[in-house]
Amino acid sequence: MATAITPLGRRVLVKRSLSEEKTAGGIFLPDTAKEKPQEAEVIALGTGKDDEGKDVSTLFTVKKGDKVLISKYGGTEVKVNGEDHLIINETDILGIIA
Amino acid sequence: MATAITPLGRRVLVKRSLSEEKTAGGIFLPDTAKEKPQEAEVIALGTGKDDEGKDVSTLFTVKKGDKVLISKYGGTEVKVNGEDHLIINETDILGIIA
Amino acid sequence: MATAITPLGRRVLVKRSLSEEKTAGGIFLPDTAKEKPQEAEVIALGTGKDDEGKDVSTLFTVKKGDKVLISKYGGTEVKVNGEDHLIINETDILGIIA
Amino acid sequence: MATAITPLGRRVLVKRSLSEEKTAGGIFLPDTAKEKPQEAEVIALGTGKDDEGKDVSTLFTVKKGDKVLISKYGGTEVKVNGEDHLIINETDILGIIA
Amino acid sequence: MATAITPLGRRVLVKRSLSEEKTAGGIFLPDTAKEKPQEAEVIALGTGKDDEGKDVSTLFTVKKGDKVLISKYGGTEVKVNGEDHLIINETDILGIIA
Amino acid sequence: MATAITPLGRRVLVKRSLSEEKTAGGIFLPDTAKEKPQEAEVIALGTGKDDEGKDVSTLFTVKKGDKVLISKYGGTEVKVNGEDHLIINETDILGIIA
Amino acid sequence: MATAITPLGRRVLVKRSLSEEKTAGGIFLPDTAKEKPQEAEVIALGTGKDDEGKDVSTLFTVKKGDKVLISKYGGTEVKVNGEDHLIINETDILGIIA
Repeated sequence: MATAITPLGRRVLVKRSLSEEKTAGGIFLPDTAKEKPQEAEVIALGTGKDDEGKDVSTLFTVKKGDKVLISKYGGTEVKVNGEDHLIINETDILGIIA
Repeated sequence: MATAITPLGRRVLVKRSLSEEKTAGGIFLPDTAKEKPQEAEVIALGTGKDDEGKDVSTLFTVKKGDKVLISKYGGTEVKVNGEDHLIINETDILGIIA
Repeated sequence: MATAITPLGRRVLVKRSLSEEKTAGGIFLPDTAKEKPQEAEVIALGTGKDDEGKDVSTLFTVKKGDKVLISKYGGTEVKVNGEDHLIINETDILGIIA
Repeated sequence: MATAITPLGRRVLVKRSLSEEKTAGGIFLPDTAKEKPQEAEVIALGTGKDDEGKDVSTLFTVKKGDKVLISKYGGTEVKVNGEDHLIINETDILGIIA
Repeated sequence: MATAITPLGRRVLVKRSLSEEKTAGGIFLPDTAKEKPQEAEVIALGTGKDDEGKDVSTLFTVKKGDKVLISKYGGTEVKVNGEDHLIINETDILGIIA
Repeated sequence: MATAITPLGRRVLVKRSLSEEKTAGGIFLPDTAKEKPQEAEVIALGTGKDDEGKDVSTLFTVKKGDKVLISKYGGTEVKVNGEDHLIINETDILGIIA
Repeated sequence: MATAITPLGRRVLVKRSLSEEKTAGGIFLPDTAKEKPQEAEVIALGTGKDDEGKDVSTLFTVKKGDKVLISKYGGTEVKVNGEDHLIINETDILGIIA
């Protein structure tokens, strides 16, 4: 159905976590850093080939449901079913919150 | 016949969807994002070799008829049979709308 | 004879079509786009090796006589037998008009 | 548990040492250098693939617990359990303090 | 003897043709183009290895005596026996005039 | 012990020679050059992998104790046991003073 | 002895020829060119590995004693035994004067 987006290449569809000040897991994000990373959840992984024509299916480390830290200014905003999402390259994801 | 364009290399010919505010599939595009992605339909895939001389026929993930999200400022505008189209590199397509 | 130019590397010699507003084939070119593509005919393909030393003879997708869309500002202008031509890299050709 | 971050790719999670003026080991950091390096401890190594899709598990030289010198402006600040940390690319680590 | 220069790498020593307005072969060069190409004759090919350490002896398409079109601002001017010459990279030669 | 630094990757730890005006070996360094090279001694070679993940152990030409010429503005200053040192990439070392 | 410099990587130690206006070999250097090439003599070739870790011993085309044309602004000035020299990358040498 038309309510989903499959990112192309090594891109990932993520949804920002509601509260970025303090997360359930105890990760505090700094409020003074120039480039403030944000917590998000991975919704969908990309498909197809990257810029060099390499199949991305074996490239991803993150998986659906992972909580990740992303750069504040990374990615492109899209709405899926009325909710804000981001399409971001996996190499712009800083880390996985465990 | 002379009413079609075959893109060269890893380029794709797409046609923007009529309404970009709200699409049939329920994907809402944000109206405040600096780089607003747009919905479009894939009309034709490229042919030949890319900038590194690699055959593009095995590179494409999108296919004719796919609804895709493209960057607002990506691609070059062309008219085919009087209708606006865009020639855009596949790596500038953000995702496929399913 | 000395009335021809053989482009070097992956360059192509093209000649712009006379009317760019409306072509015989029904392709309309937009008059408001910032980078307006132009219709041209391929006159001669390049020879020799490209910047990486790769033989260009197997790289070309366009062939002599093809009608192509080129970027308005791409290429270098030269005159052959008093007529304006352009030497342009094949990777700067947007597509083939069929 | 949600109190840890696993960096992605060739990134490393480090924690700056408390006193940067004079460390226990006798390494004095200059106070006049334009780009002042800082001492930090490696908390966690990255996982997955780097920007070229290469598995990072065999790439790291530093290991958990290593005291390292990092560029003052390198990395992105994150808080883990309320404490300041940095996510930094291993290639931006200047050296290991032995 | 000391009256010759052997270019290094994929460079070529060329000598500009006397009249650039109209050449014997009927090639007219445009007088309004921003980057006006010029006609020149190949005097000597380079020797040795290029920037990547690749032997240049199999790379050249032009040969001694070829009339070529070169970019107006390409190359470095040198005098050989009191006459102006240019040392230019072969990849900056636009085409061969036949 | 904590009084040594092992550089990471293809970096080298060097210590500038005391007098840069005239060295024992007779090498005079120019005092008017815009980028004045400096004489230094190699204290320690780097370890691990470079930016491309290549093991650096077979890459170094300089060795411990070598007197080298380095670019004046290259490298990052660090203090080891209270003495000024530099961490510099080997490819920024101009030459070895014999 | 300490009166020599061995350049590192694909660098070459050269010494500018005394008179740059007119050389014994009849090569005149232009006095109006923006980037005026200069005549110099190769004093020593580099050793070790280049930036990509490739052994430079098989890369050099120039040899000790060669008269070469170098870019006026290329290289770094050093003094050896009180005389001005330049350390320059071989790929910045334009040609060999024969």
